[in-house]
Amino acid sequence: VAAPPIAELLAVGRELLTGRTVDTNSAWLAGRLTARGASVSRIVVVDDDPDEIAAALRSARQRGARLVITTGGLGPTFDDRTLLGVAAALEQPLVEHEAALAMVTRRYAELAARHVVADTIVTPARRKMAFLPAGAEPLDNPVGTAPGVLCTGDGFVVLSLPGVPSEMRGLFDVALPRLGEVLAGGREVAETELDSGSSDESAIAATVERVMAKVPGVWIKSLPQGFETDRNLRIRVTAFADDRSAAERRLAEAVRLLGDALPSAAAGEIASWSDSATSPR
Amino acid sequence: VAAPPIAELLAVGRELLTGRTVDTNSAWLAGRLTARGASVSRIVVVDDDPDEIAAALRSARQRGARLVITTGGLGPTFDDRTLLGVAAALEQPLVEHEAALAMVTRRYAELAARHVVADTIVTPARRKMAFLPAGAEPLDNPVGTAPGVLCTGDGFVVLSLPGVPSEMRGLFDVALPRLGEVLAGGREVAETELDSGSSDESAIAATVERVMAKVPGVWIKSLPQGFETDRNLRIRVTAFADDRSAAERRLAEAVRLLGDALPSAAAGEIASWSDSATSPR
Repeated sequence: VAAPPIAELLAVGRELLTGRTVDTNSAWLAGRLTARGASVSRIVVVDDDPDEIAAALRSARQRGARLVITTGGLGPTFDDRTLLGVAAALEQPLVEHEAALAMVTRRYAELAARHVVADTIVTPARRKMAFLPAGAEPLDNPVGTAPGVLCTGDGFVVLSLPGVPSEMRGLFDVALPRLGEVLAGGREVAETELDSGSSDESAIAATVERVMAKVPGVWIKSLPQGFETDRNLRIRVTAFADDRSAAERRLAEAVRLLGDALPSAAAGEIASWSDSATSPR
Repeated sequence: VAAPPIAELLAVGRELLTGRTVDTNSAWLAGRLTARGASVSRIVVVDDDPDEIAAALRSARQRGARLVITTGGLGPTFDDRTLLGVAAALEQPLVEHEAALAMVTRRYAELAARHVVADTIVTPARRKMAFLPAGAEPLDNPVGTAPGVLCTGDGFVVLSLPGVPSEMRGLFDVALPRLGEVLAGGREVAETELDSGSSDESAIAATVERVMAKVPGVWIKSLPQGFETDRNLRIRVTAFADDRSAAERRLAEAVRLLGDALPSAAAGEIASWSDSATSPR
């Protein structure tokens, strides 16, 4: 089983650090990346501070991440400074990109035509969104004004997406075909969840450990919801292998062993997926 | 204006890294800590891996954090390994605590009496929850079975809470009086939000920068929601000072200057708070 490519997520924004906003973007991205066979090893939330952003990116690279997706801080205001941090981490200057400026100009023209903004003038604040790290590729934002930004180079990719969830999701889909190479180390995955028939985590811990030791490439996790709210604890079983049928065989074996030890357990549907472009979850 | 004490949050759990679960705990804690005058400078999410947990705690300390609150990984199952990581970071052995064992024993007796669990036997898995870093203080969990854990010592405090939100919240309230000392550097805070009367971030960026430069101790942030969904961009203004009336004066001055420059702006209610035990938000 080849190791899956490691990805990290970096959410930027003071509103996440004051509790005003829950970081739903990272969970959404984590789900998408996991479904493509990547292993999201860390999520980090930092302030709108280029030094913090650059430090977090450098640390991610040192920890072996091949991909970092940043969310937030791409807009026109003074506190949108994510690309300053990205540029610093990649040791690139921030330079105006003609293609990005064309995207911004066109989007403001569209928004003005729809009376969403008052004018089409590319003010300094709007122009700011066309300044990207040298060598970066702007990605056309289908929802908002700030282009997404893809920085590739020597095995480390940084994708910067806006913080507004609808824009973030739209731009992720734009970027996904460009991430194929960095995600190419992904494995086939098969996963299911079981009702354990018990509310008592401690009762199933030994069984879970035994099955994990017995079946290679299998990860089993109980999903505690608290005794008060869930009298039927769920168990998630995830199997990895180089091809899908092998992953599904491993999953079936683990589920069989769990069922033998937990007689009232009931398995759910099996989902399997890979990182190939034709089978997103 | 004294610098506020820096806190970091460390959420532990693979379900957060696969997108199965959104980390609402960190946002809740961030709101509570911010309201007590602490500055939450970073949120980190890692896997159920003691090495990752220990590394994240060591980094937080190096970055100057006085308090780290961990969530998740305190239960009886094999993948609940947060305290191994905390113990490693604090260079303490994990030892059985009599008081913690008494809490666990009593809770299972209560749950068995209510037929939530089948028996009162303190199995190895249940007993595991009484193993804490040496010198730690167990905190009685009013909702679930795993005690919270407070580790204090030479200016660096680690509070470990369960991942189940209801248990996390209940235990935070139990722990809060014990955090007074580490939060004692907090400042008085006054905050409000304005409707800018504009949907165009770029139009207000220059005004915001000018007001921040003019009024000391004031932080102003626009809150983009996307052009499509919010035609009236909101601005958050936060003022800090050593006493509350000074914070409120600074806030009023900043709001007045913003209102002069953005004629259709409308200010909302002012909230102010401090880290004193008598005035939680």
